Amino acid sequence: MTSEPIRVFVTGGTFDKEYNELTGQLFFQDTHVPEMLRLGRCLLEVEVSTLTMIDSLDMTDGDRRAIAGHCRQASEARIVITHGTDTMVETAAHLGREIAGKTIVLTGAMVPYKFGSSDGLFNLGSALAFVQTLPPGVYIAMNGRWFAWDRVRKNREKGIFEAVPA
Amino acid sequence: MTSEPIRVFVTGGTFDKEYNELTGQLFFQDTHVPEMLRLGRCLLEVEVSTLTMIDSLDMTDGDRRAIAGHCRQASEARIVITHGTDTMVETAAHLGREIAGKTIVLTGAMVPYKFGSSDGLFNLGSALAFVQTLPPGVYIAMNGRWFAWDRVRKNREKGIFEAVPA
Amino acid sequence: MTSEPIRVFVTGGTFDKEYNELTGQLFFQDTHVPEMLRLGRCLLEVEVSTLTMIDSLDMTDGDRRAIAGHCRQASEARIVITHGTDTMVETAAHLGREIAGKTIVLTGAMVPYKFGSSDGLFNLGSALAFVQTLPPGVYIAMNGRWFAWDRVRKNREKGIFEAVPA
Amino acid sequence: MTSEPIRVFVTGGTFDKEYNELTGQLFFQDTHVPEMLRLGRCLLEVEVSTLTMIDSLDMTDGDRRAIAGHCRQASEARIVITHGTDTMVETAAHLGREIAGKTIVLTGAMVPYKFGSSDGLFNLGSALAFVQTLPPGVYIAMNGRWFAWDRVRKNREKGIFEAVPA
Repeated sequence: MTSEPIRVFVTGGTFDKEYNELTGQLFFQDTHVPEMLRLGRCLLEVEVSTLTMIDSLDMTDGDRRAIAGHCRQASEARIVITHGTDTMVETAAHLGREIAGKTIVLTGAMVPYKFGSSDGLFNLGSALAFVQTLPPGVYIAMNGRWFAWDRVRKNREKGIFEAVPA
Repeated sequence: MTSEPIRVFVTGGTFDKEYNELTGQLFFQDTHVPEMLRLGRCLLEVEVSTLTMIDSLDMTDGDRRAIAGHCRQASEARIVITHGTDTMVETAAHLGREIAGKTIVLTGAMVPYKFGSSDGLFNLGSALAFVQTLPPGVYIAMNGRWFAWDRVRKNREKGIFEAVPA
Repeated sequence: MTSEPIRVFVTGGTFDKEYNELTGQLFFQDTHVPEMLRLGRCLLEVEVSTLTMIDSLDMTDGDRRAIAGHCRQASEARIVITHGTDTMVETAAHLGREIAGKTIVLTGAMVPYKFGSSDGLFNLGSALAFVQTLPPGVYIAMNGRWFAWDRVRKNREKGIFEAVPA
Repeated sequence: MTSEPIRVFVTGGTFDKEYNELTGQLFFQDTHVPEMLRLGRCLLEVEVSTLTMIDSLDMTDGDRRAIAGHCRQASEARIVITHGTDTMVETAAHLGREIAGKTIVLTGAMVPYKFGSSDGLFNLGSALAFVQTLPPGVYIAMNGRWFAWDRVRKNREKGIFEAVPA
């Protein structure tokens, strides 16, 4: 059993999108990660910090540098990042080149948590497990699988993550 | 990324309980694990087999020997077992003493999957992650944490699993 | 459009049952009716009062007399009663013989509201509509239908309410 | 108890929107009305027909004439129409001026049925009750209330329907 503290950095993404009933649009309000941890009866030592609440298509290089800075400065050596799936691979690659000595797992969802059919809770459960057990490095956890940051791509036609041969 | 096949053995437990609207009682019908894997967009190579559909308070030593036999005979070296929480520790201990060379992770839920507030999807996600990354041994995955079979107890007052000092 | 105030009397029943994750039993805590009214964006002038929180199999003649008393004393002429389905017909009959000059609609659910597949929200929506539009009398609203109190029975094999010929 | 057959005409609207996990957009697939009727254990004699699957902002005068034609030709005298809320009042007004001798109730939802927090099931329950009990005329059923077609407006700031003085 691990007892190391885990940091969760929230950046937004489909995970946290809500339905605005006045406009009929999806939008960001607060993160659902604390509610999801309660639902999962999670008893890990987890600290949740919201860095941004944006669609990952809107994430800039500046945002990625800021995320890397937060990962570096965090006292925790085990970090989960919730992130939109569209550019998750880019952010993982940025972190993979910049950060050493920490286990960082990016995860997200194909369907908003607040939608009935979301994969978010499953993905959060798997990401929190991978972050406790994988060696230092930067990874993506989606579809029940884990990928090293430089061995993964998003297949946009299928809406899945898949391995890239070395 | 692991690409090893995983076997899921279903034994019943709160995880799979349903509400019988004619009698007002909870009961077992079919397992929800395949539906949960679809919801999680799980792309692992997973084979699901139902061994029993019982409340873990009704699990006998014979049932545990049968589960051990299935684990031994399975071609997979990575096995997840869904199990009621009340005697999950006993079954884990039986398997821990009987099985070597395989990674076996038991998990369950405090609330039925079909109930809105279930921890089942979170636990299944974490169990499937742990089974890919932990070394051979028998473990319990609950509350986001993992425990070696001989270092865990269920705290019935709190409804959680906790570590037992060595 | 009606603008008359409506009283909702909560008596318990499947509607309001919750899952106790420590014991694995269904039990009563607080009523979910206010939460359901919020979910339905209900803007009727509704006052909710909890009379009992019991399984309708445990409802006594004394309980029924108390409910009738509350209906008589209520300032509202339109009353919805949430009630377990097993003895809903008996309570409706008691009220039908005792109360005049008010529109009283009993409703309930076959599956607890907190269970994903509940009919509760549908039934509450229909009961609140019937109570606004039916003439004084005592009715049961289930399965999208309404029945006069002396023209209905519960079919326990099918788990539905059906008309009794005059 | 009414035993008259009811026709449900589906036109689309928020009610039936789904989340496209490949594009992250809301879109229309099939209607959820039959699934909702099953969830409500509805035993009314209901026939569901899909006329259009569109956002009500895209509804044209031609669409409204077509809906009126379907209402006129339907053998049923009691009709529920599911409709987007943005122009529900306009369609109701068109039908109110065109159709006589039938009870027609328009309803919809502020949040898609497939989203966890939808008012759809509540609204459908109330619409089906109102259509059985209101005299011939055209009505809107939202927020638990009913409005005659020429006495209602949508308050877009609040996302609710409200009465217009005569």
